[in-house]
Amino acid sequence: MDKSTQYKIFNDPIHGFITIPKGIILDLIDHPYIQRLRRIKQMGLGYLVFPAAEHSRFTHALGAMELAQRTLNNLREKDTTISPAEYEGTLIAVLLHDIGHGPLSHTLEFNLIKDFHHEMMTLAVMRKLNKEMNGALDMAIKIFTDQYPKKPFLNQLISSQLDIDRLDYLKRDSVFTSVYEGSVGIERILKTMRVYKGNIVIEKKGIYAIENYILARRLMYMQVYLHKTVLSADKLLHQIFRRVRMLIDDNEKLYHPSPALKYFLEKRPSAKKGISSTVLQKYLQLDDNDIYQSIKYWQHSNDPILSDLCQRFQSRALFRTTFLEKNPSNNLKGVVREKTKKVLKERNLPYSDEATKYYFSFDKSYSEAYRYENEGIWILEEKDKAVEFSKAADTQNIIALTEPVIKPYVVHLKSIEV
Amino acid sequence: MDKSTQYKIFNDPIHGFITIPKGIILDLIDHPYIQRLRRIKQMGLGYLVFPAAEHSRFTHALGAMELAQRTLNNLREKDTTISPAEYEGTLIAVLLHDIGHGPLSHTLEFNLIKDFHHEMMTLAVMRKLNKEMNGALDMAIKIFTDQYPKKPFLNQLISSQLDIDRLDYLKRDSVFTSVYEGSVGIERILKTMRVYKGNIVIEKKGIYAIENYILARRLMYMQVYLHKTVLSADKLLHQIFRRVRMLIDDNEKLYHPSPALKYFLEKRPSAKKGISSTVLQKYLQLDDNDIYQSIKYWQHSNDPILSDLCQRFQSRALFRTTFLEKNPSNNLKGVVREKTKKVLKERNLPYSDEATKYYFSFDKSYSEAYRYENEGIWILEEKDKAVEFSKAADTQNIIALTEPVIKPYVVHLKSIEV
Amino acid sequence: MDKSTQYKIFNDPIHGFITIPKGIILDLIDHPYIQRLRRIKQMGLGYLVFPAAEHSRFTHALGAMELAQRTLNNLREKDTTISPAEYEGTLIAVLLHDIGHGPLSHTLEFNLIKDFHHEMMTLAVMRKLNKEMNGALDMAIKIFTDQYPKKPFLNQLISSQLDIDRLDYLKRDSVFTSVYEGSVGIERILKTMRVYKGNIVIEKKGIYAIENYILARRLMYMQVYLHKTVLSADKLLHQIFRRVRMLIDDNEKLYHPSPALKYFLEKRPSAKKGISSTVLQKYLQLDDNDIYQSIKYWQHSNDPILSDLCQRFQSRALFRTTFLEKNPSNNLKGVVREKTKKVLKERNLPYSDEATKYYFSFDKSYSEAYRYENEGIWILEEKDKAVEFSKAADTQNIIALTEPVIKPYVVHLKSIEV
Amino acid sequence: MDKSTQYKIFNDPIHGFITIPKGIILDLIDHPYIQRLRRIKQMGLGYLVFPAAEHSRFTHALGAMELAQRTLNNLREKDTTISPAEYEGTLIAVLLHDIGHGPLSHTLEFNLIKDFHHEMMTLAVMRKLNKEMNGALDMAIKIFTDQYPKKPFLNQLISSQLDIDRLDYLKRDSVFTSVYEGSVGIERILKTMRVYKGNIVIEKKGIYAIENYILARRLMYMQVYLHKTVLSADKLLHQIFRRVRMLIDDNEKLYHPSPALKYFLEKRPSAKKGISSTVLQKYLQLDDNDIYQSIKYWQHSNDPILSDLCQRFQSRALFRTTFLEKNPSNNLKGVVREKTKKVLKERNLPYSDEATKYYFSFDKSYSEAYRYENEGIWILEEKDKAVEFSKAADTQNIIALTEPVIKPYVVHLKSIEV
Repeated sequence: MDKSTQYKIFNDPIHGFITIPKGIILDLIDHPYIQRLRRIKQMGLGYLVFPAAEHSRFTHALGAMELAQRTLNNLREKDTTISPAEYEGTLIAVLLHDIGHGPLSHTLEFNLIKDFHHEMMTLAVMRKLNKEMNGALDMAIKIFTDQYPKKPFLNQLISSQLDIDRLDYLKRDSVFTSVYEGSVGIERILKTMRVYKGNIVIEKKGIYAIENYILARRLMYMQVYLHKTVLSADKLLHQIFRRVRMLIDDNEKLYHPSPALKYFLEKRPSAKKGISSTVLQKYLQLDDNDIYQSIKYWQHSNDPILSDLCQRFQSRALFRTTFLEKNPSNNLKGVVREKTKKVLKERNLPYSDEATKYYFSFDKSYSEAYRYENEGIWILEEKDKAVEFSKAADTQNIIALTEPVIKPYVVHLKSIEV
Repeated sequence: MDKSTQYKIFNDPIHGFITIPKGIILDLIDHPYIQRLRRIKQMGLGYLVFPAAEHSRFTHALGAMELAQRTLNNLREKDTTISPAEYEGTLIAVLLHDIGHGPLSHTLEFNLIKDFHHEMMTLAVMRKLNKEMNGALDMAIKIFTDQYPKKPFLNQLISSQLDIDRLDYLKRDSVFTSVYEGSVGIERILKTMRVYKGNIVIEKKGIYAIENYILARRLMYMQVYLHKTVLSADKLLHQIFRRVRMLIDDNEKLYHPSPALKYFLEKRPSAKKGISSTVLQKYLQLDDNDIYQSIKYWQHSNDPILSDLCQRFQSRALFRTTFLEKNPSNNLKGVVREKTKKVLKERNLPYSDEATKYYFSFDKSYSEAYRYENEGIWILEEKDKAVEFSKAADTQNIIALTEPVIKPYVVHLKSIEV
Repeated sequence: MDKSTQYKIFNDPIHGFITIPKGIILDLIDHPYIQRLRRIKQMGLGYLVFPAAEHSRFTHALGAMELAQRTLNNLREKDTTISPAEYEGTLIAVLLHDIGHGPLSHTLEFNLIKDFHHEMMTLAVMRKLNKEMNGALDMAIKIFTDQYPKKPFLNQLISSQLDIDRLDYLKRDSVFTSVYEGSVGIERILKTMRVYKGNIVIEKKGIYAIENYILARRLMYMQVYLHKTVLSADKLLHQIFRRVRMLIDDNEKLYHPSPALKYFLEKRPSAKKGISSTVLQKYLQLDDNDIYQSIKYWQHSNDPILSDLCQRFQSRALFRTTFLEKNPSNNLKGVVREKTKKVLKERNLPYSDEATKYYFSFDKSYSEAYRYENEGIWILEEKDKAVEFSKAADTQNIIALTEPVIKPYVVHLKSIEV
Repeated sequence: MDKSTQYKIFNDPIHGFITIPKGIILDLIDHPYIQRLRRIKQMGLGYLVFPAAEHSRFTHALGAMELAQRTLNNLREKDTTISPAEYEGTLIAVLLHDIGHGPLSHTLEFNLIKDFHHEMMTLAVMRKLNKEMNGALDMAIKIFTDQYPKKPFLNQLISSQLDIDRLDYLKRDSVFTSVYEGSVGIERILKTMRVYKGNIVIEKKGIYAIENYILARRLMYMQVYLHKTVLSADKLLHQIFRRVRMLIDDNEKLYHPSPALKYFLEKRPSAKKGISSTVLQKYLQLDDNDIYQSIKYWQHSNDPILSDLCQRFQSRALFRTTFLEKNPSNNLKGVVREKTKKVLKERNLPYSDEATKYYFSFDKSYSEAYRYENEGIWILEEKDKAVEFSKAADTQNIIALTEPVIKPYVVHLKSIEV
């Protein structure tokens, strides 16, 4: 049979072409649950700093699935047996790996559902889809949950220090943010990947591509994901939702353009005991637009704090982030509070202790480019010897760069000095 | 003074860097009216065919402004005098040239406001901003409206067969759609542009870059802007709004997540006698999200037609476009209607003559890569001789390619043959 | 068996990776006859205008072979049967398709061998290699000479209006010359290529990629291959060799740094009755370096004309090319001769009628972007209907652009006006 | 005056355009001494491993000059005063910084001239050109030799840990070798460069671009410049010339296609007491072609060793490089010698102790990505505080990666195991 008629082909600026096998994969892609990812930006509020970073989780999911195909084809070329069912299962697992994400940033998720873990939600959606599709996702779920001991490398492609998710998003994000230094040589990494004793390893000649990949990841955290202005925009969003919840608790009337969002804000469900079918159904109606529509209309709220915060969001009048040399003292916290109060008063905004809290916050940023304990990247140094990357020749020093970086910071009004 | 501190710099995958002069330009960019363009996609529904074409009118506006700076700097290098006020005015006019666009496609605009022209709306917004900013946009408005006879070339940069708008969007759209053939050599075009007797001309050595630009534009129409599936998605959107208006006319209850959209759908204002301040204010609250939110919730409408059309939209179950060899006969129209009726009946959907109309439509696509009458691109063949591109040496034949292309088509259910 | 160990992989800026099957293909690549192509520039003297166009025929040959692999793999995916022997034969034929090229431009070849055709030489070298390798090239030679009626499409990949040779060199030359407009979407062309009734056809959706390919080829001729300065440099080279031959005929003593070149200049063999084994062996010792070394040392020749021409070559003091509206009249020729004479006299150079001829020449440039008679590109419009490109829908007008372009020109001293 | 007519513009795949100021800069570029760099490859024998790395020192020199213009323009934008003479002087110094390079690798230079330093030769050529041009290079020479204390930053652009030379060659080499990981974000580096107290510094926001630059340089050494096969090819070249010198010392007759090369091989001049005008004049006649022509014809030498080595070179039958864990013991050296002897004997080649030495050698590779003592890169952390890169925040760990890497290795016949 002519294989070329079995695919639908999409263009993609990152990978050139994205090849979609007709059948279950294409059905899944057209499913409203996945189409929903078109309305959730991959980088949350990152576009406020990197204007062109407007790409969605949907294109990332497609891109990752394309890379999964290329990876599996390469592994087959190197004599690793992968059955059609395993092949398809892996593609599905990669395609759906982010299906549980909610609108905007992780921060927001906690404002909607208590004890939220997006892996848990992803699994819930996968199971719902599996039911709809009469078990067609059985294998994908096994691989996703690492319940497929026969071929552990399949799960490693979905979740590890060198998984396909990271390869696609690092490359995609670096292109759309135009942060050149974060770019990754995907082709070379895939070319040097193979299976050794059931696990993914990298051939020795690929060691510099791995080094480059780890350093690129580090740079993306430093320059993009934890960019000061991104941190500050995230905090503003968080404050808006804190305020909204407070107003709801106080029984204030609030216009809600999004029924689904209203549900979460009023009910505040918890995920502690799992995700109920009602919560799941409502959750799958949420996307970035629910948030943006709400903020747009909340600009005109009667509550002066909510209205001010939303107007700031809408006209990019963000707070400022200042990194701190060490953990903030109580004294510093007090000083920031008092200065903030003064400014709010001058501007005729509420300036009680409570009100002031919406205008500054202390937090820590965290990044870790590479974690080698238990789950590192393995290099095939010789025919029968694999070593963890940090122990391979020529790379020992690189490890110094990969230790977690924790930086305390304060987000505050631009008009005050810290 | 250190000029580098007078700019804010953004990254951009298309132009590398976008340099934003602080002061009025930066103020405008942070203004909610322009930030609103972040929530309107440049290519409307194009992302349904080219998944990564998710870029907004906002990044296009920034990119065009960057190109305007490069262009003006080049012209100054070639001894064209451009005063600081003219420079800034041109930048503003380029930045705001699309500010009057409404959500999604042009088709939609007519569903919201009768007798709509987006240039008229753009001018209305510019005037409103000018008032707010105490006349700071006076020069920009003069240039935009071609009321600046001293330097006609400034208006040509904003609106002509080779304006900056086109240069940015052709390049940007070709990158994001990954349609390689539509790419344009902007750098060479800008390098060979100069002013001759007050008008923009291209130096002779740039003639092939112009040829390539015109052909690229032609290809983008053929392959992207008038892609069958894009046409079909546009029609579906149009049918959804036709249905909504009908329901409103019939006094059906309809949930409206967007107050602004509701206003337009219920009032159906006209732009015939200009744009009232109420209409303008409401219009500036509208963006793509109002449309997407409405469609998302209208999936659950009680009206079976509206609900069906919205579900189709949401799960990419689009109609099919078939191009016709000639204008459709009444017979063909009848056949399509009857076949459609039959399918609707089988699916337990309403299938009256009226209902059927939402499921097919006949129309024509139109494209014109280059218009040389009155407004062509001029080539400086010799020191003192400029000729219109189609009359320049080596290019006569190219003109054959630039005649308007008009193609009749029908959009219909996939399950029927045409 | 692990296929990945059966390949050697080279990096390539055009295609990313070049995959070389070990065995006969790798043996051929390391053979001195092919390594010799490393010392012949793909674009001859083009680097005098486009400095970075320094790439060799060797990298082009590797690149074309890589594309051949991708093409054949794609065709196999579309259910075209290609045996391992046919696969390898095609790769070899593509790899060796230019093996018969001599140093620098085609012009030069006629100065070395009378009645030269490089296809004839290519075949002679292939046969010599086949002998050395005990018939391993039998299939390749059959395919190359179109003596393999079973699968005519294999020859079409090597020599047709859309052969792999063109795809690689257009793309490669456009990148190295940085002539953006000449770039070609190879990936899309390969994706839409298939075999229909034994011949290569392009699927309908690839029609714009073909249009773009033909127009890109046209632009490369206009902007690069027939660039005025390239024509002028070619003529200078030709004049140098005309002069050398004249001096040899006159029994002038001349230092020859290259024994092989000396052989050709003194013997002036003819290819009319085929290529003798001596000529072949000497020819395979020639590369660009023989020419450059000779010109470098001939700068110091006692002959004032030769020495002047060589010094011009060495310091880029080229002649000027002027295109003519029509074929030159005898009068024009006389005027140019007299003006040239005057300048030579002023510069104390020989200025006899004979001497003057080395300082100007009249010629015509010729280009043809696409030839559709007998050998056009075929488009598969419907399941069972292929039409030649110029007759396909939407492209009729394009043909106007592909007619041969013939332009008379004169090459002359920069100090005279024509 | 119209500035655009004061430039000649060349295309360049790395920087897009190269702008050449007419006048002395253009005159220099067309001078045979600089045109000679067209015949010397930038990466020596690197093309044997990275086929497309065929670019010349000439295009690198042009590219560096282009970057110098962009850098100086940027610095002027940031209010650093640079006079026209200083501007031109810097451009000339950058353009000529490599003019003293001989053919092929540094290794070869020592085979031609004793006590050679290419900076010394560069200076000699600059002075010769300065004489010819009546002192027009005075300023360039002052800047090049750091005798311009008024503006030390100009010399730093020519020679420092972050000089323009490195920026161009790293980028250029990474593109032509297609080693993605070695790519450098030149634009961002230039954008964040400024002058502080007379010295070049990088603004804080450029710190990650610098980190990336240093790591890219490290990777280029590891993956490209010190690639095993490149080391082995260099050794083979060295052995060829060792053998030739030996034969000359023994008064063996040898055919010399290159008179200039013959001069050096027979005279073996020394640079200890400076460079005589004869040596300089002969040296400027040498380019890669002299070497390649000689090796091509020495394949047919009567000396079996020379002939064998040259045939190996010509058909890429290189030796193998094996890296050693530690410095080689005398025992290892003996073992390698004996094994080599045995193979030579079997192949009927001379296998005396003396002969054997041409077939293996022990050496060390050395690389240093960044040297911070005395000459580091300085980061402007605050308005009035510059710190050396390795002491700046967030980068301490990076230094571990930049220590010199020294690796002993042995080059030997492929048929023996080490």
